[in-house]
Amino acid sequence: MKYTDLKLLKFLLFNVHNIEEILKFPKHSDFDKETINMFLDAAKDLSDQELYPYYQEFDEKPAVYEDGGIKIHPQFDKIFKAIVESGWVGAHFSPENGGMNLPHMVEGAAGHIYSAANNHVSGYLALTVGSANLITSFGTQEQIDTYVPKMLEASWMGTMCLTEPEAGSSLGNLRTTASPTDGGHYDIKGQKIFISGGDHQFAENFVHMVLARIDGAPKGSKGISLFIVPKYRIKDDGSLEFNDVLTAGDYQKMGQRGYCTAHLMFGENDDCRGWLVGEPNKGLKYMFQMMNQARLEVGMTATSIAMSSYYHSLQYAKERRQGKKLNDTGERATEQALIIEHPDVRRMLLLQKSVAVGSLSLLMESFKFYDIVENTEGDKKNDAFLILDLLTPIAKAYPSEYGLLAASNGVQVLGGYGFTVDFPQQQFLRDIRITSIYEGTTTIQSMDLLGRKITAQNGKALLLLMERINKDIAKAKESPVLEKYAGKLEEAIVVVQKTLEHLLPFAFQKKYQSYLKNATLFLELFSHVAISWQWLKIGINSLESTDYNENFNQGNILTMKYYFNYELPKINYLSDTILTAESVTVDDGNDYIN
Amino acid sequence: MKYTDLKLLKFLLFNVHNIEEILKFPKHSDFDKETINMFLDAAKDLSDQELYPYYQEFDEKPAVYEDGGIKIHPQFDKIFKAIVESGWVGAHFSPENGGMNLPHMVEGAAGHIYSAANNHVSGYLALTVGSANLITSFGTQEQIDTYVPKMLEASWMGTMCLTEPEAGSSLGNLRTTASPTDGGHYDIKGQKIFISGGDHQFAENFVHMVLARIDGAPKGSKGISLFIVPKYRIKDDGSLEFNDVLTAGDYQKMGQRGYCTAHLMFGENDDCRGWLVGEPNKGLKYMFQMMNQARLEVGMTATSIAMSSYYHSLQYAKERRQGKKLNDTGERATEQALIIEHPDVRRMLLLQKSVAVGSLSLLMESFKFYDIVENTEGDKKNDAFLILDLLTPIAKAYPSEYGLLAASNGVQVLGGYGFTVDFPQQQFLRDIRITSIYEGTTTIQSMDLLGRKITAQNGKALLLLMERINKDIAKAKESPVLEKYAGKLEEAIVVVQKTLEHLLPFAFQKKYQSYLKNATLFLELFSHVAISWQWLKIGINSLESTDYNENFNQGNILTMKYYFNYELPKINYLSDTILTAESVTVDDGNDYIN
Repeated sequence: MKYTDLKLLKFLLFNVHNIEEILKFPKHSDFDKETINMFLDAAKDLSDQELYPYYQEFDEKPAVYEDGGIKIHPQFDKIFKAIVESGWVGAHFSPENGGMNLPHMVEGAAGHIYSAANNHVSGYLALTVGSANLITSFGTQEQIDTYVPKMLEASWMGTMCLTEPEAGSSLGNLRTTASPTDGGHYDIKGQKIFISGGDHQFAENFVHMVLARIDGAPKGSKGISLFIVPKYRIKDDGSLEFNDVLTAGDYQKMGQRGYCTAHLMFGENDDCRGWLVGEPNKGLKYMFQMMNQARLEVGMTATSIAMSSYYHSLQYAKERRQGKKLNDTGERATEQALIIEHPDVRRMLLLQKSVAVGSLSLLMESFKFYDIVENTEGDKKNDAFLILDLLTPIAKAYPSEYGLLAASNGVQVLGGYGFTVDFPQQQFLRDIRITSIYEGTTTIQSMDLLGRKITAQNGKALLLLMERINKDIAKAKESPVLEKYAGKLEEAIVVVQKTLEHLLPFAFQKKYQSYLKNATLFLELFSHVAISWQWLKIGINSLESTDYNENFNQGNILTMKYYFNYELPKINYLSDTILTAESVTVDDGNDYIN
Repeated sequence: MKYTDLKLLKFLLFNVHNIEEILKFPKHSDFDKETINMFLDAAKDLSDQELYPYYQEFDEKPAVYEDGGIKIHPQFDKIFKAIVESGWVGAHFSPENGGMNLPHMVEGAAGHIYSAANNHVSGYLALTVGSANLITSFGTQEQIDTYVPKMLEASWMGTMCLTEPEAGSSLGNLRTTASPTDGGHYDIKGQKIFISGGDHQFAENFVHMVLARIDGAPKGSKGISLFIVPKYRIKDDGSLEFNDVLTAGDYQKMGQRGYCTAHLMFGENDDCRGWLVGEPNKGLKYMFQMMNQARLEVGMTATSIAMSSYYHSLQYAKERRQGKKLNDTGERATEQALIIEHPDVRRMLLLQKSVAVGSLSLLMESFKFYDIVENTEGDKKNDAFLILDLLTPIAKAYPSEYGLLAASNGVQVLGGYGFTVDFPQQQFLRDIRITSIYEGTTTIQSMDLLGRKITAQNGKALLLLMERINKDIAKAKESPVLEKYAGKLEEAIVVVQKTLEHLLPFAFQKKYQSYLKNATLFLELFSHVAISWQWLKIGINSLESTDYNENFNQGNILTMKYYFNYELPKINYLSDTILTAESVTVDDGNDYIN
């Protein structure tokens, strides 16, 4: 069963996003089109054999808490080892840190394959890599040498420990404490909840990246420091000793049931040691390096689920006969039609494809800017960083919100069968639901976009992004097929401008409530512009490329047309609402919501 | 825990929809405000005690197939008996048929309470009542006497058996056969799938209402007849004998797991007898009596789930502190706020309330027309029937589609907790997902609306509905508070007219593909108009009534404003898309969707 299209993925990588520009950087000189193709083909083979066949089983036999620890499905052991073997874990690291300087674009593309095959897998490894990345970036050489090599082997696995019972979206309120000792370590005490991959039987050790407050540190987010807190600490003779990190339980969830979610207790017996990473009170800043990457990964997870949902429902639509085709001739059809012939089923399929492929393209775009950041200096680096930072909340929130809609349409294509566990369609819907909550809810993403990213450096990020979009518009205008859609995107940019002209004065006057009260609507509006831009780029490359067949190219053009006709027009009502809506979500007392 | 607001329900019944107009009909002379309040209070007490406490347990311990039959949770036995005791089952039937002439409005209101408390329950009983209603309407006196009394006791339970493996949305293709015999019965043979409530341990007998094709009958939907096929047939001595109705299995589902879904086999051993209801080949017409009521009931189920989701997330939002409130003063707040103070959480709450209460109001409106149909003759009856018929697809599809969005927002309000099984929020989302599929998918509803109901009798239904809406607009215009919203609804009606002026010529030219290709968008557009109308009526009555307190009235006004500001504006992009979209969902070959 098809869960993603490798041809399409490579088209995005090589044609639409021209990875060859990245391969020109000296760091990536070991890679060319052929080696990248081989890397992706290997990821697909591995996914076909070891990941996809277990997708429904991971749901049916979920992670469970027993005897003080969490047990996950036994197949994970085989999968972790095989993916480590493939080189994907920490592939973007430099060779001296255990990687192979693989571009983020390729790492992301392989991650898409794994997650489309089985979205319960990659989180375990991505958080391990993210943790290793944090240590490599901000830790001491000794910390790097102690932890990172074992993490890239996935024999030790990493987690990010932020959330506490009273500190979720509001991290500044966290209560976990770190008390300095004479031994070079801190004594850690506190509880962390919702820790993805926080405990299971297939790692020798866990390297928890824990946010905590050093005794006497400032209140709020300015007093948070980052610590390495291993489940087992390393004694002088190199052996491991329990570090008083207890697993209190596992959350049972509506989806992603194979991906465990731990409740951890640090220092219940006052014997939990943590080692400071970098400087005190800079923990939140450091953690945001990992957070930003995790946001892209969550966007990719959502994208991948939506992609698999699309192909599964497409397959059904091409096989199931039901109802007679309507036509414009006045005659009734006599034969049962394939359901893919019905306009509304086609609409539901195109909706799914436009969301999944548009999101994948936006993520590739984002990873490309990430690669540019890592391969350049000065203005180039800064510009790429600003654009990446602007795109991140969109690349996280759009796939997770519209991916849910897409997956729900996937269920709908199958009718009653879609609701049964006999088909994975309902599992896609259940699995994807968490992605708009993980690593900052959509509300948080929208406030990040409008409250920080749009206004940073007097709107420089937006200007830089618009330059690039306008370049693609100009190119598309040369094509008789695309001219019209380029025009629609141009009009959409005017809508964004008009909306910001209305909003920004509130920001200048520090009227933050008025500025941000409809931030989620702005995020949705801006997302449609970003995804339309991706579809225009896909359109340009579909017409230019001679590498692919007619059905492939016309399939892209058709989906692009769907997006411009059915999705992009939503920006008008979103903008109108932002511009004209009465203040119904502020001002009134809480008692009026009853 | 609050799952619905009885005060609000009574406000809809007595104020907004003025049930006293229905109580004036002689048939309902036994009822007055007091007796209706008592009836609803009793339903609420029963729900509090016997239904709501088992909501999550029905999910955790779902219906299972074992030893050739389906076992449902033991609590169902107690619930069925208690609800029968309450008089709800068949309450709208006349006393000679075992009922008490209760208006549909009240029956629906009590059904809402039961379903908001626990949506896994009412289907079993509603299908039993619907089946009994079919027999009462079209069966012989002997059939009525044989089956109906036991059904209204729920000792025998009814089902509707339509769907087959190859006949879902397209019923004309069903293959179940009925062969005439000399014994006054037909031999039935065939398989039926997705039979809700189709088998369990708490009924002595099942009275299946089966659609089948008599040998030699015309092809397609014109050759379908309706049969009573009991699981156990009645021997001459009154004892029961197995009628060769086998239960082949139960579908495991993503939601409504306490409500069983059977796969039934009729006549596997060539010993299954069915008794014709009414005339041959009129089965589909008869069945649509039951189907139309079932559609309203599905809409009510969705509404009730969305309602319970709303109150559960509201409770959380009033207790959970997280993050600091934004304001327009330029100063940062210092204390953690309740999350209900954040504009985006308020938006998510108002969205839920506007969908759930708007849907409930539309259903009450529909039930009122149903009551008028049953209490009048001539033009009055015909007019009410036409409007009811027009509203039915909306009252089914809007709550199920927007209810899903509402329930998803309910999850989002709780953040990570919403995804865990520790809170019912995720169950609401899983349960509600089936409602846009049951009894005709949203696609089917939209084609029913645009393809049949709008065009019937030269658009008479629409004209009659508009008369009523315009009357409420005129009334609202007299109020300084409501004038503005009345104007918005007036503009919205112009949008409907403009959209239909574009579409109807296709219908006249029999260009059915062009006419119906965007029918779901039209359904969504028209739904927003219908729900806005309901909110305007709620607004009028909230300002007029002196029975309720300020918070209650202002809460309604606030939610009305939310709907007019955030939901109704969607009609503009929907209309624009219908009017201007290129034909991306028709014409192109299937190979372009790839």
